[in-house]
Amino acid sequence: MKKINIAPPTGRLGVLLPGMGAVATTYMAGILNSRKRSVPLFGSVAELAHIRLGPRAEHRQPLIRELVPLASRDDLVFGAWDIFPDNAYEAAVKASVLRPEDLEPVRTELEAIQPWRGAFDRDFVKKLDGPHVKHGTRRAMAAEIIDDIRRFQQDQHCDRLVMIWCGSTEVYHQPEDVHNSLAAFEKGLDGDDHRISPSMLYAYAALKLGIPYANGAPHLNCEIPALRELANQTGAPMTGKDFKTGQTLLKTIIAPGLKARMIGVRGWFSTNILGNRDGEVLDDPGSFRSKEVTKGSVLDTIFQSDLYPELYGNLYHKIRINYYPPRGDEKEAWDNIDLVGWLGYPMQIKINFLCRDSILAAPVVHDLALFLDLAKRAGLKSTQEWLGFYFKSPLTIDRLPPEHDLFIQQLKFKNTLRQLAGEEPITHLEDR
Amino acid sequence: MKKINIAPPTGRLGVLLPGMGAVATTYMAGILNSRKRSVPLFGSVAELAHIRLGPRAEHRQPLIRELVPLASRDDLVFGAWDIFPDNAYEAAVKASVLRPEDLEPVRTELEAIQPWRGAFDRDFVKKLDGPHVKHGTRRAMAAEIIDDIRRFQQDQHCDRLVMIWCGSTEVYHQPEDVHNSLAAFEKGLDGDDHRISPSMLYAYAALKLGIPYANGAPHLNCEIPALRELANQTGAPMTGKDFKTGQTLLKTIIAPGLKARMIGVRGWFSTNILGNRDGEVLDDPGSFRSKEVTKGSVLDTIFQSDLYPELYGNLYHKIRINYYPPRGDEKEAWDNIDLVGWLGYPMQIKINFLCRDSILAAPVVHDLALFLDLAKRAGLKSTQEWLGFYFKSPLTIDRLPPEHDLFIQQLKFKNTLRQLAGEEPITHLEDR
Amino acid sequence: MKKINIAPPTGRLGVLLPGMGAVATTYMAGILNSRKRSVPLFGSVAELAHIRLGPRAEHRQPLIRELVPLASRDDLVFGAWDIFPDNAYEAAVKASVLRPEDLEPVRTELEAIQPWRGAFDRDFVKKLDGPHVKHGTRRAMAAEIIDDIRRFQQDQHCDRLVMIWCGSTEVYHQPEDVHNSLAAFEKGLDGDDHRISPSMLYAYAALKLGIPYANGAPHLNCEIPALRELANQTGAPMTGKDFKTGQTLLKTIIAPGLKARMIGVRGWFSTNILGNRDGEVLDDPGSFRSKEVTKGSVLDTIFQSDLYPELYGNLYHKIRINYYPPRGDEKEAWDNIDLVGWLGYPMQIKINFLCRDSILAAPVVHDLALFLDLAKRAGLKSTQEWLGFYFKSPLTIDRLPPEHDLFIQQLKFKNTLRQLAGEEPITHLEDR
Amino acid sequence: MKKINIAPPTGRLGVLLPGMGAVATTYMAGILNSRKRSVPLFGSVAELAHIRLGPRAEHRQPLIRELVPLASRDDLVFGAWDIFPDNAYEAAVKASVLRPEDLEPVRTELEAIQPWRGAFDRDFVKKLDGPHVKHGTRRAMAAEIIDDIRRFQQDQHCDRLVMIWCGSTEVYHQPEDVHNSLAAFEKGLDGDDHRISPSMLYAYAALKLGIPYANGAPHLNCEIPALRELANQTGAPMTGKDFKTGQTLLKTIIAPGLKARMIGVRGWFSTNILGNRDGEVLDDPGSFRSKEVTKGSVLDTIFQSDLYPELYGNLYHKIRINYYPPRGDEKEAWDNIDLVGWLGYPMQIKINFLCRDSILAAPVVHDLALFLDLAKRAGLKSTQEWLGFYFKSPLTIDRLPPEHDLFIQQLKFKNTLRQLAGEEPITHLEDR
Repeated sequence: MKKINIAPPTGRLGVLLPGMGAVATTYMAGILNSRKRSVPLFGSVAELAHIRLGPRAEHRQPLIRELVPLASRDDLVFGAWDIFPDNAYEAAVKASVLRPEDLEPVRTELEAIQPWRGAFDRDFVKKLDGPHVKHGTRRAMAAEIIDDIRRFQQDQHCDRLVMIWCGSTEVYHQPEDVHNSLAAFEKGLDGDDHRISPSMLYAYAALKLGIPYANGAPHLNCEIPALRELANQTGAPMTGKDFKTGQTLLKTIIAPGLKARMIGVRGWFSTNILGNRDGEVLDDPGSFRSKEVTKGSVLDTIFQSDLYPELYGNLYHKIRINYYPPRGDEKEAWDNIDLVGWLGYPMQIKINFLCRDSILAAPVVHDLALFLDLAKRAGLKSTQEWLGFYFKSPLTIDRLPPEHDLFIQQLKFKNTLRQLAGEEPITHLEDR
Repeated sequence: MKKINIAPPTGRLGVLLPGMGAVATTYMAGILNSRKRSVPLFGSVAELAHIRLGPRAEHRQPLIRELVPLASRDDLVFGAWDIFPDNAYEAAVKASVLRPEDLEPVRTELEAIQPWRGAFDRDFVKKLDGPHVKHGTRRAMAAEIIDDIRRFQQDQHCDRLVMIWCGSTEVYHQPEDVHNSLAAFEKGLDGDDHRISPSMLYAYAALKLGIPYANGAPHLNCEIPALRELANQTGAPMTGKDFKTGQTLLKTIIAPGLKARMIGVRGWFSTNILGNRDGEVLDDPGSFRSKEVTKGSVLDTIFQSDLYPELYGNLYHKIRINYYPPRGDEKEAWDNIDLVGWLGYPMQIKINFLCRDSILAAPVVHDLALFLDLAKRAGLKSTQEWLGFYFKSPLTIDRLPPEHDLFIQQLKFKNTLRQLAGEEPITHLEDR
Repeated sequence: MKKINIAPPTGRLGVLLPGMGAVATTYMAGILNSRKRSVPLFGSVAELAHIRLGPRAEHRQPLIRELVPLASRDDLVFGAWDIFPDNAYEAAVKASVLRPEDLEPVRTELEAIQPWRGAFDRDFVKKLDGPHVKHGTRRAMAAEIIDDIRRFQQDQHCDRLVMIWCGSTEVYHQPEDVHNSLAAFEKGLDGDDHRISPSMLYAYAALKLGIPYANGAPHLNCEIPALRELANQTGAPMTGKDFKTGQTLLKTIIAPGLKARMIGVRGWFSTNILGNRDGEVLDDPGSFRSKEVTKGSVLDTIFQSDLYPELYGNLYHKIRINYYPPRGDEKEAWDNIDLVGWLGYPMQIKINFLCRDSILAAPVVHDLALFLDLAKRAGLKSTQEWLGFYFKSPLTIDRLPPEHDLFIQQLKFKNTLRQLAGEEPITHLEDR
Repeated sequence: MKKINIAPPTGRLGVLLPGMGAVATTYMAGILNSRKRSVPLFGSVAELAHIRLGPRAEHRQPLIRELVPLASRDDLVFGAWDIFPDNAYEAAVKASVLRPEDLEPVRTELEAIQPWRGAFDRDFVKKLDGPHVKHGTRRAMAAEIIDDIRRFQQDQHCDRLVMIWCGSTEVYHQPEDVHNSLAAFEKGLDGDDHRISPSMLYAYAALKLGIPYANGAPHLNCEIPALRELANQTGAPMTGKDFKTGQTLLKTIIAPGLKARMIGVRGWFSTNILGNRDGEVLDDPGSFRSKEVTKGSVLDTIFQSDLYPELYGNLYHKIRINYYPPRGDEKEAWDNIDLVGWLGYPMQIKINFLCRDSILAAPVVHDLALFLDLAKRAGLKSTQEWLGFYFKSPLTIDRLPPEHDLFIQQLKFKNTLRQLAGEEPITHLEDR
């Protein structure tokens, strides 16, 4: 295999975060903490994972970050937008994900992060409202975001930038003509077309500037033809959508395992209780619909019910998300899976996942920042399928159906890294 | 890739089963049922699974049994040994796994299966005793097993044979000098050395006759140097050990998923309740020790705690098996997993698996019968690592540490099949 | 205590069941079975429970049916209404609660039970429709029900009758003027007032004839002032509403236990999955609302948040019912309870109840038939508070708040029986 | 009813605690905290519970502490023994039950509590050993304990004292001749008879001085005839044994509920994981045996299998306790209950209790201190059955079988308090 030429990650990398709530503050506080005391960045593949190279007997298992050049956590600087004016320390305290003992040591650094005003339209997030917002037309707001970015880059002396959407879920909507070409989209910006969502303005601004972009939420965003066209023009890598963290992460772990053994599944009931801002937003049917769509499709693709009608053709899949304030950010999922075994005999699996929303999402933000920056330096352009590993609804090239099986995603992810470094892919044949 | 030359599966395949309890009778009753009415053989990869071939765009996904020549379920005949004289129908009724409506239609066929006397030594299974046993020295019992096989092959006009241990778990013991060479072992047979377990006599008989052999239980058996030597001499394929079915199957599905995302694990507590004969046998500390060893090692290998001391170095793994008669064959597992995420924050997963021991094991017996027979016809010899997919404690060549990750096992399994058929392995790179 | 004079239960007791679905058929099949073979009527207090009498040292613990005269199961005959014309055997097969082996022995008896046409109005049960319905005004339908009853009593030679609503849940509605007096109600019958629900017609018919009546569903029914007035006139005992069976039964067991120890509760999340006709009906928001109201109020009353604002004042109680067809009648509940202990430390209880809707309801129908008949013979009139033990939303005299604590309900129930028999109430003081 | 004459709780009450580990320090820290800031003493019936008096219509529901005179938490002073010399602050930090923010405000007060040397014999607690122990014969150690108490009372100006065993579980042993009379026991003290356990020395010292005594652990202690005799002599109230907190508390809540409805139970499997000192001690089979006996008997008594052989005669009850260090004091229980309903159909309940051992035990210590002190002032002597509410294995007068049903225990408890105050017992008849 031929090694790809990758520019080294010299200088500072600016991480731009639209939405400075629980996820963004947990992420930033974690990185800042890790600079002061020795704490492994649990959950970060970019920081911790090894990768096997060559035949088994060679015992080569370097860290991924030894195989490909990734930015150092010491070179990161953060910028964010939000519709509330709280600085990152205040926002983190309100999010109440991290304990005081993990916030106090980095209080000064967090207090220095003042969000820029957010682009907002309440039609897209019915359950929220905030005072710290941009005004004017879509075009004016997009221009202001671009200004925010340029000023930040200059002030912070950033050599490179990435942007990752960490804001709330917008309501479900379908692509329309205004989304279908860059020309129509830009005309829509000028005409303040209300079908362009605020989150699209951020994606537009990033991609326009050639900045890699990822969407962590389930709503319609950078996958519209207009923004794909823009990414192709500027060569900015992009990926999404909807961080794969709690229940869906487990689902895409377990479903491939059941299928590997040809165990039938008749029903899968998934319920969630969560009490953070995300839960409140998803209490609105429009926002929930966005989430439902990304969460719902994973089983169909993994189980290939067209190939396996007897095993998975009648699968009844139901997902419920419940706003439940006593729980705060400590989201909890309960799944019931109805299995069918030998001669049609029923069996059941129940899974109760007591997780923490932002604790699971923070390392994903970090990995995406580092791998998107790598992609940019390696000359990889537009949709990055190999980062589908991190998403509930992976973006694909050419509208191919996405792969949801976490283990296939992982193999694709690792073999892409091997390929970038000029190493052979792993097939697990004999001694390989 | 060059296609391997594989003999076609013409004629009848005799399936020899030492131990005719819940697993063996559920397996046989299922196969017999499926000949009479249309019921998918849920859980059988050999019967149901498709396999992707070539680049993604080619959309080639034949059944595995269309890619490689496997015996037809219609060509199977069954023979079994047991320490109780019940015929297969009576044994199935006692096992009470299957409902009357699934046994009655095949009652005649099951009643015709009369077990041969079992080789037995109560020192190896303290909780059982039965009247239908062979007498004499180890050598005499082995000779008698060989006679049983030859008579069966002749009476049933079998073209080929395979043997799969479906009996109880024997007590834990370590290999000693008598197990360390074929010469010592055969001398031990002559001298009725009590360190040779009854199950080893079956493995010896099969391998001696060149018959493929698999061990479904966790005790020391065909992996001893003496029997490896014998397999090498006769070229008989062999594999094992301990069918991977309920809790451990789920464990080797979930652990790789957690590791894929670098989520730390501090503790994993696994408890089981079961009330069948297997549960009764495992109530004996010696037999439990055999099981504990095979169940216990899977996490170490998957988590590679040497590579990941911060994530998995302090993992506390505890397994309990409880005999609980109200539950019968409807085994149930409860797992608690203590996770560590971003900045060290704890999370938990609880899994409650209401499974059925024999329902999960029966298709594994079937797959092993078919794939071992394939291996024999394809000229594959001795240890079949690629069948490790089916076992809690996969046998490996040259004492390499076994792979426990179900998804790596599956990839190896499928790429081996692709290789046998002259197809390229799948790497999931780009369009592959 | 003075013993009450109770007429003996001579002759036949006719049990009238509006709604012949899963609950009614499971109940009837169970009684018929129990006459043919020795099977305890699990779940029936009237059949199985003992009752302690007098001081502890006296060791008097007769069966309840030895203390008070109850009808024998051999003297019961059944009549039913339904909107489908299936006989009781066909309806039981469709309900698929009981196994063939429990239906076949009583097939002839069940087939003989042909339902009368049901009074129905789709505005009250949006998810159902059936061909076997009565036509005409409210008045005409009520008259027809009365005719059905009289004919049945004559044909079956019944000495006494009771009626228990086993039909579907009607939509939620509030009492209006038409419900507020018997005069207004009867005028409404004549004028075919559509605010009078079909279920009220059955209650009206029963109470008019002096027949004891119970409502097993959560909708507005016999508790309206008009029907209370009627019950007072005719002296018919009545009770309800909404059989306390699965999740709510457990809730009214556990909540009193937590309160007994002054353990705080911040949140209680209850979800249900069920796939029978009941689940389908409750998929309609109107019908669900009826259920939600009866299920929701139990915690408030038990926890007395006015007396205990610090412990239960902020309790967040959320109930979800999900139609999930793979599960059929095998309803399943999952509860998460967020506790507060010493110094405010959080703890959690999770309860997963794999129950069977009709299996739990059937013995409640039986007990109510027998105890309502007892009440009638003992001269107890109108609302029977002591039977609140069986209901999610117990009817009370004079609009007092109902008692939900299962153990207080049980004490009241048993002390009422003791009182009827002239025995002292139990106080558990010293040797009492 | 006639009101009992009860001396007022003037002056200071000294609470003596043998064993200053997680439970004792959590208790003391909680009381000290509650004096400084407004925090309800969650879990304490003595502090928080109301009690209904008179007919329902009277609406009299005072606090229990308004009905009977209880000591104020402000008047408590603490003394303790332990085999480690750490002061109460250090011990609390090691126990790691409470967060720093709950310990720091009361650090000075906790540091002032220096334990006296513990009476210890490693034959009784195999998994522990400590340097801070008393030496000499049983008689010498008992005398030293008495000296500790007298000195404490004088130094702290205590008007009254109570003692509550909060130490580890000793090994299981049966009463022998040395335990069977006070004379034999005192002779055993003189002769240093090793069948007298260390915990008996504390009970002896307390009862000898007329100090009320409670045993919070499951081992053989104050219930031996010798110490009953002593309690009768001195009139000291005593009670026990084994605080009813986590799994067993729930068991004695749920079992009475199932029985109230005559639901059959075939099996009850209970497993626990815990990682504190208690878990470590119970890893020793001898100590576990003590616990197993008290935990095991509760179901037999509640279910009265002699009266209900069809429902509970074949109940298989199995209890497992597993030492699992990752969990620390955050004990977790998982129960599986196999139910039998109408016509014998099976159902299941699974309960997962994520509790905290010491958080549940601390308020029980407080209640016992206050109610035992009340008993003493009210002239109640020797065994206090009405406090059985707090114990897994309640002591009874005259070897009667104990009552385990939490709701009967509560009724007895409350009616006893009503009786002390001259109020009528509650029967829940009609308006009562």
